Amino acid sequence: MNNTLKIIPLGGLGEIGKNMMLIEYQNEAIAIDCGVMFPREEHVGIDVIIPNFEYLRKNINLLKAVFITHGHEDHIGAVPYLLKEFNVPVYCSQLTKGLIGNKVKEHRIQGRANINLIENKQVVKIGKFEVEFFSVAHSIPDAGGFIIKTPIVNLVHTGDFKIDNHPIMNQFTDIDRLKKLSNNNDTLLLADSTYAEIPGHTQSEKIVAETIHKVIKKTTGRIIMSTFASLISRIQIAIDAAEKNNRRVFVTGTSMVNNVNMAKKLGYLKIKSSTLVNKNELKHIDQNKLIIICTGSQGEPTSVLTRMANGTHQNIEVKKNDTVILSSNPVPGNEMSVAKNIDKLFNLGANVIYNKMENVHVRGHASMEELSIIHKAIKPKYFAGIHGEMRHLYLHKELAIANGVNKNNAFVLENGDILEISKKDIKLLKKQIPAEYIYVDGKGVGDVDDAVLVNRNELARDGVIVCKIHFNNTDMSITETEVFSYGVIKDDNLNDLHNKIIDSLEDLIDNKTSKQTVLLDENSLNKHIENCVYKFTRRRPLVLALLIK
Amino acid sequence: MNNTLKIIPLGGLGEIGKNMMLIEYQNEAIAIDCGVMFPREEHVGIDVIIPNFEYLRKNINLLKAVFITHGHEDHIGAVPYLLKEFNVPVYCSQLTKGLIGNKVKEHRIQGRANINLIENKQVVKIGKFEVEFFSVAHSIPDAGGFIIKTPIVNLVHTGDFKIDNHPIMNQFTDIDRLKKLSNNNDTLLLADSTYAEIPGHTQSEKIVAETIHKVIKKTTGRIIMSTFASLISRIQIAIDAAEKNNRRVFVTGTSMVNNVNMAKKLGYLKIKSSTLVNKNELKHIDQNKLIIICTGSQGEPTSVLTRMANGTHQNIEVKKNDTVILSSNPVPGNEMSVAKNIDKLFNLGANVIYNKMENVHVRGHASMEELSIIHKAIKPKYFAGIHGEMRHLYLHKELAIANGVNKNNAFVLENGDILEISKKDIKLLKKQIPAEYIYVDGKGVGDVDDAVLVNRNELARDGVIVCKIHFNNTDMSITETEVFSYGVIKDDNLNDLHNKIIDSLEDLIDNKTSKQTVLLDENSLNKHIENCVYKFTRRRPLVLALLIK
Repeated sequence: MNNTLKIIPLGGLGEIGKNMMLIEYQNEAIAIDCGVMFPREEHVGIDVIIPNFEYLRKNINLLKAVFITHGHEDHIGAVPYLLKEFNVPVYCSQLTKGLIGNKVKEHRIQGRANINLIENKQVVKIGKFEVEFFSVAHSIPDAGGFIIKTPIVNLVHTGDFKIDNHPIMNQFTDIDRLKKLSNNNDTLLLADSTYAEIPGHTQSEKIVAETIHKVIKKTTGRIIMSTFASLISRIQIAIDAAEKNNRRVFVTGTSMVNNVNMAKKLGYLKIKSSTLVNKNELKHIDQNKLIIICTGSQGEPTSVLTRMANGTHQNIEVKKNDTVILSSNPVPGNEMSVAKNIDKLFNLGANVIYNKMENVHVRGHASMEELSIIHKAIKPKYFAGIHGEMRHLYLHKELAIANGVNKNNAFVLENGDILEISKKDIKLLKKQIPAEYIYVDGKGVGDVDDAVLVNRNELARDGVIVCKIHFNNTDMSITETEVFSYGVIKDDNLNDLHNKIIDSLEDLIDNKTSKQTVLLDENSLNKHIENCVYKFTRRRPLVLALLIK
Repeated sequence: MNNTLKIIPLGGLGEIGKNMMLIEYQNEAIAIDCGVMFPREEHVGIDVIIPNFEYLRKNINLLKAVFITHGHEDHIGAVPYLLKEFNVPVYCSQLTKGLIGNKVKEHRIQGRANINLIENKQVVKIGKFEVEFFSVAHSIPDAGGFIIKTPIVNLVHTGDFKIDNHPIMNQFTDIDRLKKLSNNNDTLLLADSTYAEIPGHTQSEKIVAETIHKVIKKTTGRIIMSTFASLISRIQIAIDAAEKNNRRVFVTGTSMVNNVNMAKKLGYLKIKSSTLVNKNELKHIDQNKLIIICTGSQGEPTSVLTRMANGTHQNIEVKKNDTVILSSNPVPGNEMSVAKNIDKLFNLGANVIYNKMENVHVRGHASMEELSIIHKAIKPKYFAGIHGEMRHLYLHKELAIANGVNKNNAFVLENGDILEISKKDIKLLKKQIPAEYIYVDGKGVGDVDDAVLVNRNELARDGVIVCKIHFNNTDMSITETEVFSYGVIKDDNLNDLHNKIIDSLEDLIDNKTSKQTVLLDENSLNKHIENCVYKFTRRRPLVLALLIK
C-alpha cells in the first residue's frame, strides 16, 4: 500500500465552478464540495456541467465521505448526481444542509441521502482523516473551510472566503484558529483564488448596508430590490432598512421565497411578522411604503425581475416613480442579460440603481491583501491555489511565494492532477485521472460530448439544408428535387436559394460526363450542393442530400 | 415644404455600435458617421450589423454628404455599404481618410468613393448646413466632433470623446471652441453617453505611459505587447519606451502592420528607422532587447496573440521569461476569449500583465465629470445623449438636467426616432422610420432576419434529426427507416437513440388504428418522432421526417 497523501482536484481549478477536491490516503478518500458549473456560450444547449466521477467509479469503495464548505451551487449542485451513484455521508453546516435537502428532494433521492451537521470547530473522524470545520465570511451564511489532519501533513481548505471586519451576520473568518497552525510548518494550504488578480481588500458588507439604508431612506416611491436568493445577509439589510423606514416587505420568486422561509425558520433571518406582506395584501397596501425583494439579479429568463422588465409579470407592473435596486454583480457570462433588464426597466420609467453607479454590492471573495493575511496566519509549508481560472492560480502561487512559501513547494494544479505528498517530499505526478467535463442535457448525464457541441455550434453558424432527390435508376435521371432549409436565409429569399440549388442539380444532368460520378453518390451530391450554396451565399450550412432511388 | 429640422438616429442609440445620425432640413440631409456593430452571442453566424438605409432609399436624393468623426469601425465600418448604394461625398480627417481608404479598397469600390479631408476648425457648407470639425481626445488620433449651423438651431455632435489633460499625441478636446456657443442659448447637444454611468473622470493616457515605461524598464526578457491596432498613441508609448530602453520593435498582425505603416507615413507615429525589426532579422537579434507589438488584444481567433497563446504561431513561440502586456480592456462580449488567451499564456510560462492588475489601459470615453464639463461649456438649450445603451442615455439625460437643461428639452431617443425642431418648439414625433438591424452574413446583406437567428439558436440548442422513411403504398407498411442526427447525442449513444426512434415507428405499424393518421403525413410523423426523442432525452432537436412512397 502506498503511504502517500494524494490531493486530486476534480473540478474548480482552471475554471470558476464545479468545485470538488479529493483527498486520498491509502485506500480511503474524502471529497471537499461537489458543485456544478453553469454552461458558457460554447456549451450550447447544456443545462449544467458536473465533475467527472470516473476515478471514483474505478475505485468503487474509495470515497468515504463528502464535506461541503457552503451552500452555493458551485459547491453543492452536483451532490445529487454523486449520491445517485455513491452511498456516502455528507457533512455540512445547518443552512447548507437545508439547501442540499431541497436539491435532494428535487432529484427524488431523499431515501439515499445521509446528510449530517458539522458545526464550527467540530471535528469529524473519517478513517485516518480528522476533519475540522472553521467559519469564514462569504456571501452566504454558515460558510466555512476545513482543517484536515492526515498522517502526512495538515491541510487547510479555505472554501470560498473573504475577510470582512464588519460583517452583517457575525460571519467572521476565523483567523485566530488558522494562526494556531503556523508553528508546525507542516501545512498544505489550498486557498480560494477567485480574486487573486485583484489588488487590495474586498469591501465589507457594511458598505452595502450603508448604501442601501441611504437609498431606501431618501426614496419616496415603491422599491424593488433584486439580489442572489442565497445572499441572506443582503436580504437582512433590506429588511432592516424597511423596518427602520416603516416599509413593509413582499418577498417573491421561488428560490427567494424558499430561502427566506428556510432562513427564517433556522433563525438566520430576523424579521417582524408584521413586516411581511402576503400576496393577497399586496394590492391593497400603500405602494410607497413597500419593498419588493425578488429574484432576477442575473437576468435569468423566468425570474421575477426579468418578467417585470418584460412587462409580463402577472401581479407587478413597473412604472414611473419605482426605484429598482440591483444588489448584485453580473456573474461572467450574464453581463448582457442583466444590462438588457436594466435598459428595459429604465424604458418603463423606473429609476434603476446598479453596481456601476453606487455601492449596492460587494463581492464575496478575498482580494490579494486578504489572501496575504491568510498566508501569513498559517505560514504553510506547501501551497496550491484552488477555485479559479489558470491566471488566478498562477498569480496566487506568485503571491504565496512572495509571502514566504518555498518556490519548490508552491504549485499550480489542474483538474485531474495528482499532487503526492510523503513525509519526505511533495511532487506533482505525471499521470492524471479523468477530469473532462460531464455535461447534463435534459435527461442525459454525459451523453453529450465536446464533438456534439462542435456540431451544434456549426449548425448554429449557418443552419441546415436538406435535399430530397428522387432518382430514376433506369434512365439515370433526377425526377424530382425537394429542398428544405432551416436557419439559412430569410423566408423572402428562400425560394430563390432553393431554385438555385435545383437549377444546379439539373445542370448536372445536362452535363453527361459528371453525372455518373456525382449523381450516384450522396457524398458527392452533398459536396456539389455545399459548393453551390457557398458560391451564392459565402456560407456553409450543414447539407444533407438524400438520394431516393 | 416642412421648415423644421429633423434629427434622426439610424444607429448607436440603445446600443454600442453602428453609429449613424441623420440631420435633415427641407429636402436635404447630412449623416454623421456610418459604422458597424459587432454581433453578440444571439446573432449566430452573423459577420457584422449595419444601419438600416431604407429611409434613404425611399427618399433617394435626400442624403447630400457624410461626415465622419473618427476612424473606429463603429463609426466607419458601414461606409462601403452606403457608398455602394448612394453617391455622396464623405468628409473626414486625415487618419480617418486613410482607414476608410483601406476599407473601400477591400470592397473594390474605389471608383465610387469621393473622400474629402476636413481639418480642425474647417467649415464645409452642404446646402443649408455649415459643418465645422472640432478636435476631441479619444483612443485614436484625429478624432473630432461637429458643430453644425442650421437655419433652426446650432448642433453639437461630440463623436466619441474624453477630456484628457495629458494626452500623448496632443489630442485635446477643444473646450474653448465649444464655450463660444454658450451665449446663444440655441444649441442642441448630442453627446457621447458610453460612460454616462461611471462617476468621476476617465484616466489620462499619461497613466498608461507611466505604467508601460515602468514595466518595460524593469523587465529583462522579451516583451510582447498587444493592443488595438487603431490605438496609435498606445503604440507610440511602446515605441518610446522601447527606444528609451535600447529595445528594438517588431510589429506583427495585418491590421497592426497596416496601421503602423500608415501612421508613420502620415506623420502620426515617430519611430527611428533603426528601431524597427523586419521578419528576417527577427530570429537573429537579442530577444531580451525586443518588443513585439501585435494584434489580438480582444482574443480574436486568427490574431497573432491568440495564435501565440495556442502555440500555433509560425515564427514566435511564447516561453518562460517572456512578459506579455495586454494593453487593452475586453470589449463587452470578448471577456471569455481574452481570459482564455491569458490563461494559455500563463500555461506557456509567460508573465502576463493585464488591466485588472496594472494600469496598462485607460478607456476612451468621457465619464460623468467630463460630460458635465461639456454640458457647462456649451450650456445647450436642447439635449439628447448618443452612443450608448438605453441606461446610458437615461442617465446622461438626468445628468444634463442636473447641469441646467430644461426637463422638457432633454430627450432619450431611440434608433428610428424623429426629433423635430422648429423655431418655436421641439418635439419627438410619434412615427418612426425603419431602423431594424441589417445583418451581413457572407455575401448576403439583409438576407438573414431575426426569424433566421431564432431558428439558428434552436438548431444549436439540441441539434437536428433527419428520418428517411420508406413507405409501401400498397400494403401501407414501412419498408425501411434511416435515421441521421447531428448535434444531438455523442457517437457512442447514437445507435441506441436511432434504434429507439425506429422501434417507436415500428410500434406504430403494429398499432393499426393510429397507423392511418400518423404514417401518411410527414407532419404527424414529425410530431411522433419529436415526442419519442423528448421521452428518451428530454430534448427537442429539429426533426425532419421524410416520407418516401
